[in-house]
Amino acid sequence: MAPIRRAASVDPADVTIDDEFWNRWLETTREDLLEYQYEQLEASGCLENFRRTADGADGGFQGMWFADSDAYKWLEAASYVLATRDDPGPDSDLRRRVDDVIDLVAAAQGEDGYLNTYFALEEPEKRWTNLNMMHELYCAGHLIEAAVAHHRATDETSLLSVATAFADHIDDRFGDAIDGVLGHQEIELALVKLSRATGEERYVERAQYFVERRGRDDRLARELERIEEIAGYDPDDGGVAADAREAFYEDGDYDGRYAQDHAPLRDQEAVEGHAVRAMYFLAGAADVAAETGDEDLLARLERLWEHMTERRTYVTGGIGSSARGERFTEDYDLPNDTAYAETCAAIGSVFWNRRLFELTGRARYADLIERTLYNAVLVGLSLDGTAFFYDNRLASDGDHHRREWFECACCPPNVARLLAALGRHLYATGTGTGTDTGTGSDERLLYVNQYVGSSATVPIDGTDVELDQASGLPWNGEVTLDVDPETPTEFSLRLRIPSWCEDASVRVNGEPVSIAVDRDSGSGSGGDGGGVDNGYLVIEREWINDRVEVTFERSVVPVRAHPAVAADAGRIALTCGPLVYCLEGVDHERPLHQYRVETASAFDAGYRDDLLGGVVTIEAGATVPELEEWDGELYRPAAESARHSTSVTAVPYYAWDNRAPGEMRVWLREE
Amino acid sequence: MAPIRRAASVDPADVTIDDEFWNRWLETTREDLLEYQYEQLEASGCLENFRRTADGADGGFQGMWFADSDAYKWLEAASYVLATRDDPGPDSDLRRRVDDVIDLVAAAQGEDGYLNTYFALEEPEKRWTNLNMMHELYCAGHLIEAAVAHHRATDETSLLSVATAFADHIDDRFGDAIDGVLGHQEIELALVKLSRATGEERYVERAQYFVERRGRDDRLARELERIEEIAGYDPDDGGVAADAREAFYEDGDYDGRYAQDHAPLRDQEAVEGHAVRAMYFLAGAADVAAETGDEDLLARLERLWEHMTERRTYVTGGIGSSARGERFTEDYDLPNDTAYAETCAAIGSVFWNRRLFELTGRARYADLIERTLYNAVLVGLSLDGTAFFYDNRLASDGDHHRREWFECACCPPNVARLLAALGRHLYATGTGTGTDTGTGSDERLLYVNQYVGSSATVPIDGTDVELDQASGLPWNGEVTLDVDPETPTEFSLRLRIPSWCEDASVRVNGEPVSIAVDRDSGSGSGGDGGGVDNGYLVIEREWINDRVEVTFERSVVPVRAHPAVAADAGRIALTCGPLVYCLEGVDHERPLHQYRVETASAFDAGYRDDLLGGVVTIEAGATVPELEEWDGELYRPAAESARHSTSVTAVPYYAWDNRAPGEMRVWLREE
Repeated sequence: MAPIRRAASVDPADVTIDDEFWNRWLETTREDLLEYQYEQLEASGCLENFRRTADGADGGFQGMWFADSDAYKWLEAASYVLATRDDPGPDSDLRRRVDDVIDLVAAAQGEDGYLNTYFALEEPEKRWTNLNMMHELYCAGHLIEAAVAHHRATDETSLLSVATAFADHIDDRFGDAIDGVLGHQEIELALVKLSRATGEERYVERAQYFVERRGRDDRLARELERIEEIAGYDPDDGGVAADAREAFYEDGDYDGRYAQDHAPLRDQEAVEGHAVRAMYFLAGAADVAAETGDEDLLARLERLWEHMTERRTYVTGGIGSSARGERFTEDYDLPNDTAYAETCAAIGSVFWNRRLFELTGRARYADLIERTLYNAVLVGLSLDGTAFFYDNRLASDGDHHRREWFECACCPPNVARLLAALGRHLYATGTGTGTDTGTGSDERLLYVNQYVGSSATVPIDGTDVELDQASGLPWNGEVTLDVDPETPTEFSLRLRIPSWCEDASVRVNGEPVSIAVDRDSGSGSGGDGGGVDNGYLVIEREWINDRVEVTFERSVVPVRAHPAVAADAGRIALTCGPLVYCLEGVDHERPLHQYRVETASAFDAGYRDDLLGGVVTIEAGATVPELEEWDGELYRPAAESARHSTSVTAVPYYAWDNRAPGEMRVWLREE
Repeated sequence: MAPIRRAASVDPADVTIDDEFWNRWLETTREDLLEYQYEQLEASGCLENFRRTADGADGGFQGMWFADSDAYKWLEAASYVLATRDDPGPDSDLRRRVDDVIDLVAAAQGEDGYLNTYFALEEPEKRWTNLNMMHELYCAGHLIEAAVAHHRATDETSLLSVATAFADHIDDRFGDAIDGVLGHQEIELALVKLSRATGEERYVERAQYFVERRGRDDRLARELERIEEIAGYDPDDGGVAADAREAFYEDGDYDGRYAQDHAPLRDQEAVEGHAVRAMYFLAGAADVAAETGDEDLLARLERLWEHMTERRTYVTGGIGSSARGERFTEDYDLPNDTAYAETCAAIGSVFWNRRLFELTGRARYADLIERTLYNAVLVGLSLDGTAFFYDNRLASDGDHHRREWFECACCPPNVARLLAALGRHLYATGTGTGTDTGTGSDERLLYVNQYVGSSATVPIDGTDVELDQASGLPWNGEVTLDVDPETPTEFSLRLRIPSWCEDASVRVNGEPVSIAVDRDSGSGSGGDGGGVDNGYLVIEREWINDRVEVTFERSVVPVRAHPAVAADAGRIALTCGPLVYCLEGVDHERPLHQYRVETASAFDAGYRDDLLGGVVTIEAGATVPELEEWDGELYRPAAESARHSTSVTAVPYYAWDNRAPGEMRVWLREE
């Protein structure tokens, strides 16, 4: 089967972001976050583990048993930063620091290509004996991702050669000597990345093996039974064995859903289990489908996506509602005050959705990326970049706060590597399917998926096209795009119509292009070279040096959740454009549960540059109960109680918990 | 100071209940519950502990370390049953069984009067060394209560002599040899009971010591520090030490509130800590106030009662909202789905409230007894008397069910002893305070506190008055009372006006008595010999042989909770007369959270004898969301969603979980 790739994202190295909203986050990432995380790599003993392994030391491993991955995620993020710098030359401080860490990593690698400092230091004889819990392949996957990023940024092979040696080691052993999969996915998508970077097809075959092998026998179940023996842990002493029992057993029986091991992927009906594992798994499966041209597998992934987004996703885009097992639970089980919605799971969702977009060219995946980025991901990071949410509640009584670091420090470096490569999600090229536009299957397409101020150079069929975007998002829907090809070129420009957009107007070189947007179907009609297809606003023409101006109309929209969501019954959430809003205690006199928001009256949305780094706040009419009449009573006939008018101030959800600690609620009672 | 007793409850032995609603519960208690619990005393090893102690055995104690109290509670309940039987003669099966258990208990008593099978069998050298957790005085208190009940029922002293010997032992040692109080109260009220039964005043003094001593130093705190040593428990192995740490420590500091040990009672501002302990403590304190004539102490108790009922009581009368520590938490913290509201705490509240009524003659205490009995207590018992709720949720997703027994089996025998002596709460005599009625302070009063079909002989100033009551409660407010003194006697009949009563009409021998009831103030005005005082409808006259007919008007009333109660925001609870209602999943097609009850339209309340042993159900108009419009969407603009009309069926809260398991909610969303 021929590979499937209906769209190819433009490499972040070819995109330079300059955006009023995002600049601050990216600066935080490039400067503070990378520096801070490097300090944590030293402080936590992560780098020391590599040093001691290189020195042939015995014992003394520090941190979680998968701490190596922290170093790799840092290397990946740092490589993306190097790639987007004007001068990533070998003399820069960051470049030198990256090289130093790579030297450490390379020195810790074994003669046979194996590389894992936990096993090297603590249990060298137990390599590959506990795939379920010990994350060796997970760490390998992050090494590979870092290596590919570093190679792209620098053209160097210092880390890539380490990664290929380890990948070869893995490829040699798995399938024959070791027939099984690992608990925490990551190796799958990493091997496809490595294949694309090296041209080595067997890495795709090995990734396919890992994707297809899962759920086909009880290897993980059997491993769990002998976990004490193989991992050397006392099950009564907490730790890994206890974690595994907690995660994998339901009412005493093995429950493979935790690691998506309950059935072969092709038979799975819903996204289940540990949300980060699920996202990495499905991203890897999407990569395998792309490379092998497996339309059946792609159809299964699209079905799983629909089930997830229609039944198991918070309004923020967050996923995995339960802290126990960090997992998906049941359809419509989306509690707010105990929402887990791990930051890493949201990041994993972005990874999976980018792949689904590339496989299908459908706007809905890019649309979910937008919602997830602005809400479920950004909330994970404080405005100053120094504190992090691991889990993201949608309601808090005031006891949930960002922390400076975590023993299991997966989220902060994951945020860093996502934001450092944010440019990857903006533009893509592809060829048309010709189903709706009637322009034939060979049309050339240029997708604009995210509205982020930026400049980029995008090759369309051999011609470099310079793009220059200015965007008012998320505070307004004004977007300007200058399109300047090397030589005049005909192609179809596809501008994603956001799901929050109520109407859109377009002008090309000042001339209106008439387009009717049907929000529900993602389709519409137009003329003058304009149209709507697959969720995109389409402008097909010969581009010379043209300016496209788009206004995506947006207003404050209170949304309701499906009636089956018990936690949101009788409540609305305020949204405005891509942003979900919340109330914080600091802005209100009464406890938040006492307010009812008037959805029938007008909302007042206005920009305040003095607040939270500059945000649009929403003022809404509301009522609160009269308190005076309750003198000394706890229960009264309902007919006797009255309310009076007041207002509430909502702020973007991502910005909460950056002021005085207090209550927060996304879902509000409605008047 | 002279004793305070504004009212004296009529002894349950002098009251014969014959009531359509209560007969089934009392039969269940007399027959099945007592039999079932006796079997549990055998099966759990409780009686065997006494046998082995009598035999001088070593070790082998079975059950919780306070299991002796289960036997005592059973003896107390059985004695109440004997007292109300026409023929409690020595040949009855129950009488023989009671005597056998008493023989066992007596044989287990030590030479010095000490009696506790846990310490006798397991740690004889550690008597009285761990008052905090080991419940020796708690068991002693239950022994005393049983002994007094048995003595009243039979005139025998077989158990009373055991109790007095133990009480003397305790009185000898405490205060001097042992200066301290115990963790779980019960001895206080028991010693006052014993004093009243024996005329021995020093038992009151010892009770007073226990009441006043608490909260005055850190004896309990010091004991906790050495709990491992003195109780022989491994703190890392769960059990008593772990329980104590869990209960008594807050953020690492000793928190005496758990055992009401944070301050002297006279300085306490709120009812705190373990709810059962608090109720037993306050009941004992009320007894001490009564005997010592301590008006200051009484005023403190009334203040604590007001704080509890205005801020920390469920609409059912249940108290103690948190499973952690089985305790009171903060003002207005009344979660529904995690409500603890232990059955024993509700029973303790009835005990305390009866004492407060006797001390004050105020209807509000009898009113809370009514609410608590019909809702928070009865819900603890299945309709067939064989399964029990220990904790009582006010909302359940379907996973909360009554169980047949508990390792800590405090609630079932507590229900039994309360119901077996239900007659105690119906009638009382007293003398008037003369403040409101203007009839002078020496008037003779006869209180009717609970409307339960019954006959009783009540002495008023030396004249026996025969009372014969018929009551339609809880299904309607029709009450008929025949008053027939031996000789014509003038006294003031006081009929409690229930707080749920919207209006009342009274006829004496068919002649209307005009009365205006003011629900809020508990007062009102009247003529023709009628009036309202202290929450009572007053009829003063010379009684010859007269019939009083009262109608307490009641309707379905949706009530709201104070705005500070976050759990009930936007919700109403349906009440009708003394009953709180709930929705059960079994009666509804949709998940319960989807219904909104229309409070503006009429409710349809009707008796259904085919349901739940015969209940009045409430049919209410309601709406549910349209589901069709939600095809494949999880969030939609609020303006687009619609609802349609339907109805809900509410059943009395006490009767829930007696049919197919499923959801239950007391607090309902409002249309």
